[in-house]
Amino acid sequence: MDKAFTLLAEDTDTKARRGRVHTARGDIETPVFMPVGTQATVKGLQPRDLKAVGTQILLGNTYHLNLRPGPRLIRKLGGLHAFMGWDRPILTDSGGFQAFSLAQLRRMDDTGVRFRSHLDGSEVFLGPREVMDIQRDLGSDIAMVLDQCPPAGCPRGEAEEAVRRSVTWAQMSLEHATASGFLSGHQVFAIVQGGRFEDLRRECAQALAQMDFPGYAIGGVSVGESEEEMMPQVETAAACLPDGKARYVMGVGTPPQLLRMVGYGADMFDCVMPTREARHGVAFTPHGKINLKNHRFREDPRPLVEGLDNPVCAQFSRAYLRHLVMAGEILGAVLLSVHNVHFYLHLMEEARAHIEQGDFATWSRAWIERYNAGDPDRPS
Amino acid sequence: MDKAFTLLAEDTDTKARRGRVHTARGDIETPVFMPVGTQATVKGLQPRDLKAVGTQILLGNTYHLNLRPGPRLIRKLGGLHAFMGWDRPILTDSGGFQAFSLAQLRRMDDTGVRFRSHLDGSEVFLGPREVMDIQRDLGSDIAMVLDQCPPAGCPRGEAEEAVRRSVTWAQMSLEHATASGFLSGHQVFAIVQGGRFEDLRRECAQALAQMDFPGYAIGGVSVGESEEEMMPQVETAAACLPDGKARYVMGVGTPPQLLRMVGYGADMFDCVMPTREARHGVAFTPHGKINLKNHRFREDPRPLVEGLDNPVCAQFSRAYLRHLVMAGEILGAVLLSVHNVHFYLHLMEEARAHIEQGDFATWSRAWIERYNAGDPDRPS
Repeated sequence: MDKAFTLLAEDTDTKARRGRVHTARGDIETPVFMPVGTQATVKGLQPRDLKAVGTQILLGNTYHLNLRPGPRLIRKLGGLHAFMGWDRPILTDSGGFQAFSLAQLRRMDDTGVRFRSHLDGSEVFLGPREVMDIQRDLGSDIAMVLDQCPPAGCPRGEAEEAVRRSVTWAQMSLEHATASGFLSGHQVFAIVQGGRFEDLRRECAQALAQMDFPGYAIGGVSVGESEEEMMPQVETAAACLPDGKARYVMGVGTPPQLLRMVGYGADMFDCVMPTREARHGVAFTPHGKINLKNHRFREDPRPLVEGLDNPVCAQFSRAYLRHLVMAGEILGAVLLSVHNVHFYLHLMEEARAHIEQGDFATWSRAWIERYNAGDPDRPS
Repeated sequence: MDKAFTLLAEDTDTKARRGRVHTARGDIETPVFMPVGTQATVKGLQPRDLKAVGTQILLGNTYHLNLRPGPRLIRKLGGLHAFMGWDRPILTDSGGFQAFSLAQLRRMDDTGVRFRSHLDGSEVFLGPREVMDIQRDLGSDIAMVLDQCPPAGCPRGEAEEAVRRSVTWAQMSLEHATASGFLSGHQVFAIVQGGRFEDLRRECAQALAQMDFPGYAIGGVSVGESEEEMMPQVETAAACLPDGKARYVMGVGTPPQLLRMVGYGADMFDCVMPTREARHGVAFTPHGKINLKNHRFREDPRPLVEGLDNPVCAQFSRAYLRHLVMAGEILGAVLLSVHNVHFYLHLMEEARAHIEQGDFATWSRAWIERYNAGDPDRPS
């Protein structure tokens, strides 16, 4: 296949990179945040909203879409892009993580996982090849290999076994994607596992790097471990991955975590936090999160973030958004979701600009400090 | 005040009329459907969505907004239009209906109603003047007088008393709105009550007509009575109201009911049905309502309504909308709400065109027949 990633610039003070992922549906400027559209919808946002806030690529989920509405139905209706009305790139997670976290596991061996659906209890099998075929049916621009994601705090033996199996499955996935022709016109990313064991992370990353995947992900992070445990795993794994390939950290994180991981050389992120927090009445600001249920926003005429260029900050006051949240109105969740997704996208846009300008290290340090200091208006 | 309503054309076969309501925020072409934004939001729709589907005017509710977030807060934030980001006309209901239907009533006499809030149990008083003042704080373009809405099936004595009190309150409201200056630049509509007793409807309409309000509403319909009981009340009341004033039928109805009432000379309608049905997975079509939970829509690639010019029909298949509904996704309720509101607005747009063309009677008869016949694709 054609070149999957171009490294445009590297920071001198950190390992931050400016890059570009190339897909058949267009280029993606990195570092990038990818809104999560698990069930063929980013919760609460219309495709038009996603474009209005600058979404370059979004996520779908193989586990969920395989169970409902099913890959054959989506293929019949023209693929996931046509189905959900989104014409920019889509990355789909392999469903490995969900098969372990959501489903009732029945059996797992080197051929794959057998589990009961969390929706109706029906028995489903996902192997590395099946997962590739589902993602081919969906028409994913970037497909993820099936991996085994061990729980946080698992014993070393379990993490070793997960690494061994994930590497085996990655190899099977790549061979199947090559043989089926999926690799021409689509990308497949491998996933680094290894739990909290840095030597296992290193070993896994090196083994996968030798297979020459179009891109690499770091998985099995933010699965319940502390931030102090998580960050070194990402740093270690990122350092062992090839410079010329995109690096995607799966399922993280807070805005400061994203900036720190950009500094480790990570390029791509996805997280449900912006939309999930929105549904709980929480908005992201440069001074940390604010909960609109708080009485102090009752008459606050200001936008969520002064000067931030999105349709929510342009039109609605904190007082109005608080009213919607307090009244349990759908529109509250919708508007906060639009804002929060934009906040994450905008943060990565700023990161890209500062990497280009060469001041990423000082800018990101100041950004995190301000964010962690919290809201200066908050009564102490 | 300036002229409130212009009668543009009258149908010859029915009493249908083409008209124009004049407000400080622009003209409203009638017959018109007004989406319901009870709590300062039409459930699930952004102001931009409302404009995209051609909303001319929307509703707010005095009872709800008085309790939360309160008229003083809304006034402080620039009025209801600025608060909710809507710059076209707003009509606010007086809250009389909700004080009787939602609140725990404490006392009622000719000065007003005292009740306990359904939100926090606090005691609230609403009299005809208070209701005018709240709507002045909200900045309503069309304010409704406080009325007494007796329950369906009430004895004649109770309906008589409600008429007497509603007429008294209408007089007090008009005097207060005139004295306070609200009537210059805003409209106040009186409300015809009378339950299922046609002579009371007639008497009430005539008494109110003599007061020369800018416009008139028919209230206390669709409160639990049968369609057979409701329709004659609307027909009778409409016939007793002055030709030169707008006639607004409150809280109705199904698409066929709206068309029949247009034929009685009604000009304005509001109803929660389009948004409420949407939240239950139901969409309106020219062949009746369809419930997207039905299995037969599982792979249906067609839009909700072939050729209907709205953003939902333009972009999404029934199969996708069904998937969102089945998955319990917010976007399902949002997109069906956009479509259903547009369906109602479009129906009134068609009615206006056919009144102008002079074929309203035959067109509306055929429309109702097709709608009532149901979906031709439905397996029998």
